[in-house]
Amino acid sequence: MEGKFAISESTNLLQRIKDFTQSVVVDLAEGRSPKISINQFRNYCMNPEADCLCSSDKPKGQEIFTLKKEPQTYRIDMLLRVLLIVQQLLQENRHASKRDIYYMHPSAFKAQSIVDRAIGDICILFQCSRYNLNVVSVGNGLVMGWLKFREAGRKFDCLNSLNTAYPVPVLVEEVEDIVSLAEYILVVEKETVFQRLANDMFCKTNRCIVITGRGYPDVSTRRFLRLLMEKLHLPVHCLVDCDPYGFEILATYRFGSMQMAYDIESLRAPDMKWLGAFPSDSEVYSVPKQCLLPLTEEDKKRTEAMLLRCYLKREMPQWRLELETMLKRGVKFEIEALSVHSLSFLSEVYIPSKIRREVSSP
Amino acid sequence: MEGKFAISESTNLLQRIKDFTQSVVVDLAEGRSPKISINQFRNYCMNPEADCLCSSDKPKGQEIFTLKKEPQTYRIDMLLRVLLIVQQLLQENRHASKRDIYYMHPSAFKAQSIVDRAIGDICILFQCSRYNLNVVSVGNGLVMGWLKFREAGRKFDCLNSLNTAYPVPVLVEEVEDIVSLAEYILVVEKETVFQRLANDMFCKTNRCIVITGRGYPDVSTRRFLRLLMEKLHLPVHCLVDCDPYGFEILATYRFGSMQMAYDIESLRAPDMKWLGAFPSDSEVYSVPKQCLLPLTEEDKKRTEAMLLRCYLKREMPQWRLELETMLKRGVKFEIEALSVHSLSFLSEVYIPSKIRREVSSP
Repeated sequence: MEGKFAISESTNLLQRIKDFTQSVVVDLAEGRSPKISINQFRNYCMNPEADCLCSSDKPKGQEIFTLKKEPQTYRIDMLLRVLLIVQQLLQENRHASKRDIYYMHPSAFKAQSIVDRAIGDICILFQCSRYNLNVVSVGNGLVMGWLKFREAGRKFDCLNSLNTAYPVPVLVEEVEDIVSLAEYILVVEKETVFQRLANDMFCKTNRCIVITGRGYPDVSTRRFLRLLMEKLHLPVHCLVDCDPYGFEILATYRFGSMQMAYDIESLRAPDMKWLGAFPSDSEVYSVPKQCLLPLTEEDKKRTEAMLLRCYLKREMPQWRLELETMLKRGVKFEIEALSVHSLSFLSEVYIPSKIRREVSSP
Repeated sequence: MEGKFAISESTNLLQRIKDFTQSVVVDLAEGRSPKISINQFRNYCMNPEADCLCSSDKPKGQEIFTLKKEPQTYRIDMLLRVLLIVQQLLQENRHASKRDIYYMHPSAFKAQSIVDRAIGDICILFQCSRYNLNVVSVGNGLVMGWLKFREAGRKFDCLNSLNTAYPVPVLVEEVEDIVSLAEYILVVEKETVFQRLANDMFCKTNRCIVITGRGYPDVSTRRFLRLLMEKLHLPVHCLVDCDPYGFEILATYRFGSMQMAYDIESLRAPDMKWLGAFPSDSEVYSVPKQCLLPLTEEDKKRTEAMLLRCYLKREMPQWRLELETMLKRGVKFEIEALSVHSLSFLSEVYIPSKIRREVSSP
């Protein structure tokens, strides 16, 4: 499923939407229930042997909706309502957020999740991505470093001031003329770490691009990272807190998310390396005892569930070892705990030494 | 308390820090307990008559700390530890976040709030603002529209692409060469609304500057807004959800926050007008029934507490009437509920009509 659609494809998509709605109308006119089949996708399962098909972006099953059963009728109704709004957006060449769409028929939609699922159904049905429907998410990411690009004609010259944060563009498909002198891309989980690196002028001494999604990454940030990887072919490293939430963020960047599994090939960063922080780092970099916080019951449950994911068994057994170490020790810590040595320990010691030893990192 | 410090003042501040620490050492050497007096500030009280002094930025009382009582000893200890780090930042001309400072002595500080209070004590003691201590917060705000400025030499030309979001600068005191062709400044509570206005090319048809703090505004966003007001002398309008949280955000922009009451004159926007959404708007703009959500018990309690604040009685009785209307009706709604009429109802009808009728708005 090629993520990038040119203008011609959006006219083509409009035509396909018309053809589809016409076929539904014809079915109804001829007294037949329309039959809408929606492929099912997933990016992992709990198969103990991990000899499943999850790593491929092919469908793993199919649902067929007709008007014979009430829940399916409701799902078709929601799909058609959202499709009508999408058609209007495409015709008027305008963009809307999922929230905007919910508020156009709040009584029918009842909850934001209903709209989100309908948008997913439409993307699967027409084999496209959300932005092809002119549905945009609020961008949350920041980028800085050895990079220049344009977004819909607007110039973003991060090179011009290496330690300035620029917002990751919302209309990622309109990014072009990507030029970089970087040697690698560093993705950091948190904005406080991003700000710390900016304050330390990290990009002055390290020829790289730094990106943050400010926590759990939004679609624009993941799509932008994927685009940079496709165009620049640079190694990508990820720095997250040593806790289950940090690991979930790392796994989402690397393996994609279940909700967007249908669009995995345009959103995940397949060769991303985990730079840290590892549970084992707490000794190597002598993180003080009081910065090691006990895992909560919720932390343990989440970690145990993550250990069962097929993609870890199949592709990253070393990551599983570190997760098991975290469970055994029963403690977690934030990246900032490393600043206990000095304010710029992260920029001057930890990250550079990890990148140099990148070959040995899992 | 003049917010802007030039380089000479930071050397002067370093000297004053040295003098202060010296006086503490002399006291201790001569067997006396140091006596540290910290002025107390507040930006409102619950005085029924509202004939209090809250609107002035003068201190309202004083605390005197000595080593004679354990809690005060601990407070002096924390103040001195943070002061030492600040001294190092100023000497090395580097910046740190409150989180960075916490992680330099996690065992002593025990909690982030302890560091935050010590930073407040230091600002009060030396009559300066946080950024004079080189303590920076992670910037969260976005700005777009008819504006150009520089931040530490870096050019931000929002005019160049009117509907592009630029991050509000973190080092606000290094902003200069502010040029604008705007007729007013519009502050919106939420990023989804900011994005909606960007998608609708709002700044193409309305000669204004749009700012969002992405929810509860951080210090950089409030300081940046204050700086624009001081330099450009433009009317400022604020658009928030019609609920207690939205009103709290409006009040923080306009009257400042309790925690930063000591620095109120460099952070609040005294002439800000409340553009909406008002409870009365739900009829005027026929917000559909299902978008009117019932106030929770927590909502009611917060609203009743806000009604008691002296600054509302003294300066904005009309705002109190709208809060009372909200309580009477028992419902709240989000700004996006107005999109039920059309996707760009906010940009094309609601905001322009409100701004035109600005004279009549409370």
